[in-house]
Amino acid sequence: MKIDGVHYYAIWEKKEEPGVVQVIDQRFLPHVFVIEDLRTTDDAISAIKEMHVRGAPLIGVVGAYGMAFAVKAASQKDNLEDYLKAEAQRIKGARPTAVNLAWAVDRVSRAIQGVSTLSDKIDKAYQEVETIIAEELERCRLIGEYGLPLIEELANKKQGQRVNIITHCNAGWLACIDYGTATSLIYMAYDKGIDVHVWVSETRPWNQGSRLTAYELGKHGVPHSVITDNAAGLLMSKGEVDLVIVGTDRTTRTGDVANKIGTYLKALAAFDNNIPFYVALPSSTIDWNLSDGADIPIEERDENEVHCVQGLLNGEVSKVRITPAESPASNYSFDITPARLVTGFITECGVCGASEEELLKLFNQK
Amino acid sequence: MKIDGVHYYAIWEKKEEPGVVQVIDQRFLPHVFVIEDLRTTDDAISAIKEMHVRGAPLIGVVGAYGMAFAVKAASQKDNLEDYLKAEAQRIKGARPTAVNLAWAVDRVSRAIQGVSTLSDKIDKAYQEVETIIAEELERCRLIGEYGLPLIEELANKKQGQRVNIITHCNAGWLACIDYGTATSLIYMAYDKGIDVHVWVSETRPWNQGSRLTAYELGKHGVPHSVITDNAAGLLMSKGEVDLVIVGTDRTTRTGDVANKIGTYLKALAAFDNNIPFYVALPSSTIDWNLSDGADIPIEERDENEVHCVQGLLNGEVSKVRITPAESPASNYSFDITPARLVTGFITECGVCGASEEELLKLFNQK
Repeated sequence: MKIDGVHYYAIWEKKEEPGVVQVIDQRFLPHVFVIEDLRTTDDAISAIKEMHVRGAPLIGVVGAYGMAFAVKAASQKDNLEDYLKAEAQRIKGARPTAVNLAWAVDRVSRAIQGVSTLSDKIDKAYQEVETIIAEELERCRLIGEYGLPLIEELANKKQGQRVNIITHCNAGWLACIDYGTATSLIYMAYDKGIDVHVWVSETRPWNQGSRLTAYELGKHGVPHSVITDNAAGLLMSKGEVDLVIVGTDRTTRTGDVANKIGTYLKALAAFDNNIPFYVALPSSTIDWNLSDGADIPIEERDENEVHCVQGLLNGEVSKVRITPAESPASNYSFDITPARLVTGFITECGVCGASEEELLKLFNQK
Repeated sequence: MKIDGVHYYAIWEKKEEPGVVQVIDQRFLPHVFVIEDLRTTDDAISAIKEMHVRGAPLIGVVGAYGMAFAVKAASQKDNLEDYLKAEAQRIKGARPTAVNLAWAVDRVSRAIQGVSTLSDKIDKAYQEVETIIAEELERCRLIGEYGLPLIEELANKKQGQRVNIITHCNAGWLACIDYGTATSLIYMAYDKGIDVHVWVSETRPWNQGSRLTAYELGKHGVPHSVITDNAAGLLMSKGEVDLVIVGTDRTTRTGDVANKIGTYLKALAAFDNNIPFYVALPSSTIDWNLSDGADIPIEERDENEVHCVQGLLNGEVSKVRITPAESPASNYSFDITPARLVTGFITECGVCGASEEELLKLFNQK
């Protein structure tokens, strides 16, 4: 998508230095636009862990590059296979909840198996990342295409009145490569001239909503308003919301959805007010090995993310402490929305209900 | 309750200057402890409007003092009755959702009716405020006494294991005069030696939870952890919450509860996880004239409260802007929790279910 008229992806290979990767360092948005070089597996791991990049699809791609970097550094290592296995584990451990990370790392690992020379392995690893990127791009585009009719129907039903959509966290192009997952259909609807307005839930503690989603939508021109996470229930009960769309970091084969903490509360409010609640879901985020959302590991992050809030003060990106110095805090990053609260999934293969049966039917997998 | 060993009320008459009132200016907590003098009706109105003071019972008392100040200033006015009526309206308009404000202002207005001299009216007005304060104090104490068995039962059921309570916003002594409403039973349980732990929901946008409730509990020594508002659902689904207790700004005769925005989401999550959800409710917050929560006016405040977050930076209380400069925001202050989601009310007259029948029975009113 575009920033001030220039088309960006969330990650790309550096033109001047083949093999080096560049990302937008999302920690400083919306205040400062910083581009960061990633050269090593350690760079990739800290970019994921410290959230220079976030969002399940993008985490997957950065992890895949981290694996390619590991292959590139392998000439100095004794036991290639053990070394690569250990590096893969290290990358996968950077963030435990998103399934894309393990999935993408494993794809690169598998791709280089049986490739004989190290130089060919390196080429193959980079090629595989490029394939993953191309696939994720296409998945996001298709999610938009399959999801668009949902918004079109609402617009028709409202006879041209504004369609109000609420989203949580950032499931936008900054979380993916382009388009986004949840935002993909919103951008398409907007580009088609449908009158949409997005309630952007700020998404404490890291404020992915007020910092990233608001930034993205604003740069593309999509009408939106930032709200506190607390406001979703009232807006829904006042009839100010027509549709909820969120992303996911991992979804079980039965349709339980792990997503940014607070998603479950929005799903409950949508259910209580008969508002459709959809999850935009590239197939890379499905964990076919899990049947129960309670088995998804929930990442617990540093409590300082709760104590402090980052923003702009006199032109400088600064952090203020909002809690008493002596108070402890707790900081789980995700929650689980049970399938029973999910109206449906919007995937690259079409739209389906939130059940094992419907997911298997759509993806033809058993 | 105590701050560093010294017992404070949230409001009191200044010893050195009779007729002048002092409050803790809550805008600067937990970072700086500021005491403010209130001398005029305008002082009282801006203290309410700009949230130097907040919390339904305290707003009522400050409004009542505002009315007493108006009576004191009346000698310079032509038409006493019209002037006082206009002042009462002006005070009531400072914040529309809490019913205590109108209730307390009307009590002072009624008390001075039929009192002949202005000097007697002034005395009577101050006396009436003192009566309101004494009543609110006693109400909060009784809420604690009637509510305590709920926590004791949970502690027994858990065989001495820690009882985890979640609260929202600040329904503590800073919102009242002393004890608090929702916190009154928590303080009593703690003082009795019950092992309680409070999840303090930060309560964006104004962060009454992370700033005030955490401060209060910490100063009294009650174990607590600050969480984001988003975290309530996950904690409940993980079995980490035994009881939800919140306050209210206005409750209809049918038991619909207006409280700080985000309360409704907690009620939904409590209901979905079979966790008791109680509202601590001094009778001054019941609006016997309303039968439907949808008729409670919901205050909309300045969007800058969403854009900016206040905290401590290098020892200074500072505000950072968290949203993109171009993004608009929406800022409703309250939401409505329907009676069907409320397990019960804890009042100064005892505990009852959330229905018109039970409320009328308890308060003997028709």
